Order: sequence, then structure tokens, then C-alpha cells
Amino acid sequence: MATEKLASWAVNLSYNSLPPEVIHAAVSSFYNWVGCAIGGALHPTTTTASEALAPFFGKATSSLLGQKGARTDASHAALLNGIASHVHDYDDTHLQTIIHPTGPVASALFAQAEALGGVNGQDFILAFVAGIEAECKLGLSVWPKHYDIGWHITSTVGSIGAAVAVGKLMHLERTPMQHAISIAATQVTGLRDMFGTDTKSFHVGRAAQNGLVAAVLAARGYTGSLQALEAPRGWARVVSVENNIDEQFAGLGREWEMARNAFKPFPCGIVVHPVIDGCIQLQRQMAAAGLTAGDIERVHVRVHPLVLELTGKKTPQDGLQAKFSVYHGGAIGLVLGKAGPAQYEDSVVLSPEIVHVRDKISATADESLGADETEITVELSNGTTLTKHVQHAIGSVEVPMTTEQLEEKFIDQVSPVLGAEGAQHASKACWALQGSESVVELAKGL
Amino acid sequence: MATEKLASWAVNLSYNSLPPEVIHAAVSSFYNWVGCAIGGALHPTTTTASEALAPFFGKATSSLLGQKGARTDASHAALLNGIASHVHDYDDTHLQTIIHPTGPVASALFAQAEALGGVNGQDFILAFVAGIEAECKLGLSVWPKHYDIGWHITSTVGSIGAAVAVGKLMHLERTPMQHAISIAATQVTGLRDMFGTDTKSFHVGRAAQNGLVAAVLAARGYTGSLQALEAPRGWARVVSVENNIDEQFAGLGREWEMARNAFKPFPCGIVVHPVIDGCIQLQRQMAAAGLTAGDIERVHVRVHPLVLELTGKKTPQDGLQAKFSVYHGGAIGLVLGKAGPAQYEDSVVLSPEIVHVRDKISATADESLGADETEITVELSNGTTLTKHVQHAIGSVEVPMTTEQLEEKFIDQVSPVLGAEGAQHASKACWALQGSESVVELAKGL
Repeated sequence: MATEKLASWAVNLSYNSLPPEVIHAAVSSFYNWVGCAIGGALHPTTTTASEALAPFFGKATSSLLGQKGARTDASHAALLNGIASHVHDYDDTHLQTIIHPTGPVASALFAQAEALGGVNGQDFILAFVAGIEAECKLGLSVWPKHYDIGWHITSTVGSIGAAVAVGKLMHLERTPMQHAISIAATQVTGLRDMFGTDTKSFHVGRAAQNGLVAAVLAARGYTGSLQALEAPRGWARVVSVENNIDEQFAGLGREWEMARNAFKPFPCGIVVHPVIDGCIQLQRQMAAAGLTAGDIERVHVRVHPLVLELTGKKTPQDGLQAKFSVYHGGAIGLVLGKAGPAQYEDSVVLSPEIVHVRDKISATADESLGADETEITVELSNGTTLTKHVQHAIGSVEVPMTTEQLEEKFIDQVSPVLGAEGAQHASKACWALQGSESVVELAKGL
Repeated sequence: MATEKLASWAVNLSYNSLPPEVIHAAVSSFYNWVGCAIGGALHPTTTTASEALAPFFGKATSSLLGQKGARTDASHAALLNGIASHVHDYDDTHLQTIIHPTGPVASALFAQAEALGGVNGQDFILAFVAGIEAECKLGLSVWPKHYDIGWHITSTVGSIGAAVAVGKLMHLERTPMQHAISIAATQVTGLRDMFGTDTKSFHVGRAAQNGLVAAVLAARGYTGSLQALEAPRGWARVVSVENNIDEQFAGLGREWEMARNAFKPFPCGIVVHPVIDGCIQLQRQMAAAGLTAGDIERVHVRVHPLVLELTGKKTPQDGLQAKFSVYHGGAIGLVLGKAGPAQYEDSVVLSPEIVHVRDKISATADESLGADETEITVELSNGTTLTKHVQHAIGSVEVPMTTEQLEEKFIDQVSPVLGAEGAQHASKACWALQGSESVVELAKGL
């Protein structure tokens, strides 16, 4: 019944039933996604994919964000905007499942909204929320076993979220919506072994594309299984060893996952955030005392076990690998007092100054710590020791980014691509999503 | 090391090292694939997908087989020819794994060969064999657990076979070939729960497309994991509970899976073949004695347990469902003495004459029987009983289809689409693959 329940809920969801905080979270998530997608538009992972797949591009209906008006077919726009939005690992996080929810859903939805035309901001928000809820509730139902097995949960549930969102935008009825969910569910994309390579962000783009294709096929009457999620050989049992899908879906429309979405201040795995946060604070403290990174003898961090499992790369060789190195995160915090996209460029990752401090950092896993907590100890050559305890890192539910910080992040990412004025214009346009009369018009400035 | 081993083997494979029986099997498999793809070109599952995805079609470089010269981009040609080639469940079978090997590999390869141009028959055969070996050895390494879990093995390994084939055609070196394998491996498409719906054949097309996209990305330097198949969170461990991948890959180039490929005389699950074969023989026996299906009181079949697990649908409602009904298979054999695509049309599946006999058939699973074996008992209203033991069904390794039967099957499928003369022309062109100077020229008649 799970597939039918989800389809039925999504089909019946109305804009008026969305609580204000859900709409606010949806607009913020969309805003953050646009910033990340434009910020990642010129990354080699995005441009290489674009060049490789250009021979397959179809009718230009949908924008490639940050590409100065360039467009392609909705399917490739979904793929490439999805890649761009995730390539800096700077996108949003549903903290309970570490799903990055917006990439797969918004990349599919925005591309198809442009292709369809006649979509306003409220239509978009409604479909977007339906997709995010589908994705995150499904993710919760198989978390953490599904992730432990080795699936990249962002993309494996993302394709289903994208299908629900696009299906909602296309006004699918319940049965076709079940088929859309089914066709998306059968395309299980994303092995964790790809982390640290171009393919990690490809997962997000492909999930968007898988979901879009699923909804477009279902809209024409293409059939899948009506019990795709819950059947004995359906999605949940094949991709996980346990699930509580019925329980999770019972919460649809009552507990909103959209409102639990968080935004990253740093472009790397969310679990590195406490260490970066603490190291930046320590760098400021040292600077105030006239000390620099050159005065550091040894650094030790205690972290939640997941931090080392996910981000234990000791000697990253490029920016993509550095996103999975808590050591690089600590080093840029201590040396540069900053951790933006610029601090994850290959040249910084390999610079002697950073490598020198990075190699002085050791880490131990401590199960008593929370995933957003850390204890940092810095031994200085003058014999003194500094310590810093971060209870909840910035970007957590307890210490969310403010609207101003989100805007700063957006401008920081978009300015190098669209220029300062273009970035301001884009920022205003995206904040105004709810009142937008046309997503096609909105897209023009992005 | 498995990923590196496979890549290295494929990169170094030369045409001169292919045994004659492997080349013969490759040409026969290609021939059978073309027949199936043209035969499925006008099936609603193919045409619906084509109509739904037409807005995404790119530059027309690659043929849609059986569509009278219609072309699209290589990616969509791979998808749609893949769907068409599998929709009648009439394609080839690697019996040890029940993989249908040619669909994913040839659909990707043919589309890309046309797009690249300058590919001759030997180039094509070489790349094709590399892909088939990759696919089937990988399939063997996770069989049967992977299938038992619920994965449609044809598409889950098919994408990897397609990537190896296209990568070989594009002359990838070892490291990019590892990345191609990796990008294909991360796109795990195909849940068995979709059997009996449009999405089953979508799996084959999508696998072709996944593999093609993987190779095209890798050719541009896109990276995945270099240990994608064997890593702790790589393909084999995530999608199966056990594997013997190193052992299987040690046999690459020594034991050829290509030569173990079998062709189906009937357009349905291979496990139904013994019952159909036996029932057709019984129908002839009855006809010779002046008896008809109207004289049948009861039918009982004893079959391998897999037959009922896979094809136990008692009351199929359309042609796609009927492919998973050993009862329908028995009924058309007993009533019509034939089991071609025409006997799987919806109108036949629902005809009172067929339903009447179908409902008289019962089946029991018997572990002592082989998968290609059956015992059939027919009780007649005159009080007599007929029995038929099929040791190895037609289409098995022991009783393969002859070249003439294969040609008959091809003409039978292609004539309704291309006309009698077109079918003869296509048949000659496909048999001549090995000496063909240009796959582009070859494609023109298909």
C-alpha cells in the first residue's frame, strides 16, 4: 500500500495546506540550490559532462544555470544542473538522513517547468514540497541500513522525489503517479564508493533525470509495478535490509521534512563542519594573540565515528578528495580562517602551507560525541595548549545559517559567474519565487 | 583488482584472438537482436516511450530500427532499440544466468557506431564480444544471489557490458575504461517487481543508455572509482550477498560466454519453453488422432521450481502479463500449436477458447527436474491420458535453434514491419556483418 499511499498523498496535496514555515523552507532551499548550481556551473565536473553529452542535446527548452542563457532539453538540463548543484558539496542537508534533498528534485522540476511553460511560483513550490517530502520520508524509512550497505541515499531516493515532483507539476492522477514512482524506483543510482570522484555529483544529476523521465513516461501511460516500493521484490526490500515505510508515510503532511532542511556554510561533507567551525574560531583566537599557523606543533580532534568513516582521507590530492578529508577541513580553518569554495581548489589542497598543518592533525572517533559536535586541542610551540568545544556546528538545526548568511553564500558563489550585478539580480528573483508569475521569466536571470 | 582486470582484458582484446565459434555466435546474436528490435518497433511499449521522450531527442545520428529511416541521438536510439529488442521477451538468453545479453550491449554499441561513423563489421564484433563477456562473467560472479534478492540481472550487468563495448569501440585506454565501468556500475537499474509491465523492457534500454553515457563521459576524462566492482562499498558487495568475481574474471578470454548464448523460439520467459514445446508436440499428436482442445478435461505439468516462481501468473490480462504465465504458454501450445508474437497479443490472451483451456492447466514444482525439462499429462474426455516428457526444450544448449529456424524467426518478425522484401534484404545484410565495411551503411536497410 505504500506506493499507493504516497501517490495518493502527493496527488491530493494543495498549496493552501502548506504551513508558512514549509513554504519559507521551500523558498530558502530553492534559493540555496540556485546559488550552488550557478556556483558549480563552471566546475570541470560540470563542463566535462556537458561537453561529453553535447552530441545528445535536444531542443533547447530549459536553462543551464550560470551558463549565460544557454539552454538544452529538459532531461539534460536536469542532469547538468543537478551535477552543478552538488559538485561543491555545498548544497542542503536533511540532517536525519544526510540526504541532500533539493538537488535531485529541483533540478528535474525547474527544467520541466521551463519546458512546459505556464508554471508560476506557487505551482513550483507545491510540486517541490511534494517531491521533498516523498524523498525524505522514503529516506527515513530505510535509514541507516540502506546507507550502511553502500548506497548514496541522496540519489537513490532522489530519483523518486524528482518523479513525484514532476508528476505533481504535470497533474498526474493517482495511478499514473504510482507508475511514475515505480519507474523512478527501478533506477537505483548511486554507490558510495564513488565519493571523491566526478561521479558523486553525477548521481544527483542522474537522479533528477531518472525521476523526470519516469514522470514523463508515466504521463503517457507507461506502466511499472503499482507496489514498486513495498512489494516482496520492490524497492525497499531490495535496497535495504529493513524499513519502516508504512510508519514514515503515515506522517506525510503531518511532520514536514522540508522544514528540517539545513544549509551548509562550508562546501564539504556536513560531518566535517564542527571541525572547520572550531578551527576557524581557534584561528581567530590565535590571531588575536599574535599567533599564526606556524606556531602550531600538534592538533588533535575528537569526533563522532561517522566523521572518520566518511571523511578520513589523510592526504587528499585534489579539491574533490579534500571534501572527504576532515584533515584538510581543519587545516584551512587553522591556516586561512575560511572554508569557502576557494579553499577547496586543487592549488590550495596541494599548497605546502596547508599540507604542513594538515599533517600535524590527528583524529580519534568518540561515540559519546554528537555528529555535529567536536573537541579540538591545539598544542603550540610556546608550550601552551588551546582547546575548543563545538557543541553544535554552524549549519546544524540548533545553529542554522541566518538569511543574511545564506544571501552572503549565494552572492559569494554567483558573483564570479554572473558578475556582482547579475548576482544581486538573481538573488532578488529567487527570493521572490512565491510571487513569481512565471518560472520561465524567473529563469532568464539565472 | 577486478575492475582493473576487466578493463585491462577488454582494452587488450584483439579481433585475431577471437575463436571462430565466438565470431559466429556474435553474428548470430546480432542477427537475432536486429530481428527482435525491428519486431518490437511498433509495440506500444516502444512507441509510447518514443512519443513521451521525443521532446528530448537530440541530433539524428542513429537509427530507430524498424522505423523506416527514422533517427535520433545515440543515447535515445540506445534506449528505444533496447526497449524494442526486449519487449516481446523474444531475445537471446545466456542460460547459466538467464541474462538476455545482447539487448543492452548491442543497443548501445550500434547507436554509437552509427554516431561515430567509420566503424566496420569487425570493429563492431570485437567491441560487442568484449561487452558480452564483461556482462556475462560479471553476472556469473553474483548469480544466483543477486537475482534472488530481486535484481533484474539483464539490466544490472547489462549497463556494465554496454560501457565496456562502447569504451572498446572508442578505443579507451585502461584507466578511462575503469572509469567507464565505474560510471556504469553506479547506475543499478532493474527491479524484478517490474516484470509484466512496460518497465521490464525499459530496463534493457536504460541499461544500454547508462553504459553508453558512462563510456562517453569516461572518454572525456570523467572519473569514477577505480575499484568500482570489488571495493568494500562497490558494485558486487552492494548488489549481492556473495560473489566470486576474481574467479570469473580469471576465465576471461579462456571460456567464452558469447558461445554459450541461446536463442528463443518462443517470445516469452525462457523457463516456459519446455511446457510450450511439449504442448505443441501434444497438439500435433492429438490432431493426428482427430482430437482437438475441446477434448481436453485436465492438464497437469511438472516443472522446475523457478518456472512457477517466475511465470506463475494464473490469469494474465494482457500480452505482457501472459509472458509470465506458464498456463497461457501451455494453452496456446495445446489450442493453437504455435507460440509466436501473434499468440501473445492481448486479444488471444483474453479469448474464451484460450482461457477455457488455460484454466484446466495445473502445475507443480519438482526440484528433480532441470530448468529446461518438463512432464506433461493431458487427460481427455474419452478417458485416455497423453503424456509428454521434454528433456531439453528447443532453444536450450542441447537443442539449439538451427540457422534456418533463426532466419525464419527473423523474417517472421521483420516482415510485418519492413515488408517481405525488406525483411529478406535486412536478413542478408545482418548475416554479412563480419564483412561489412560500414555499420552506417548496414543500418540503412534496417
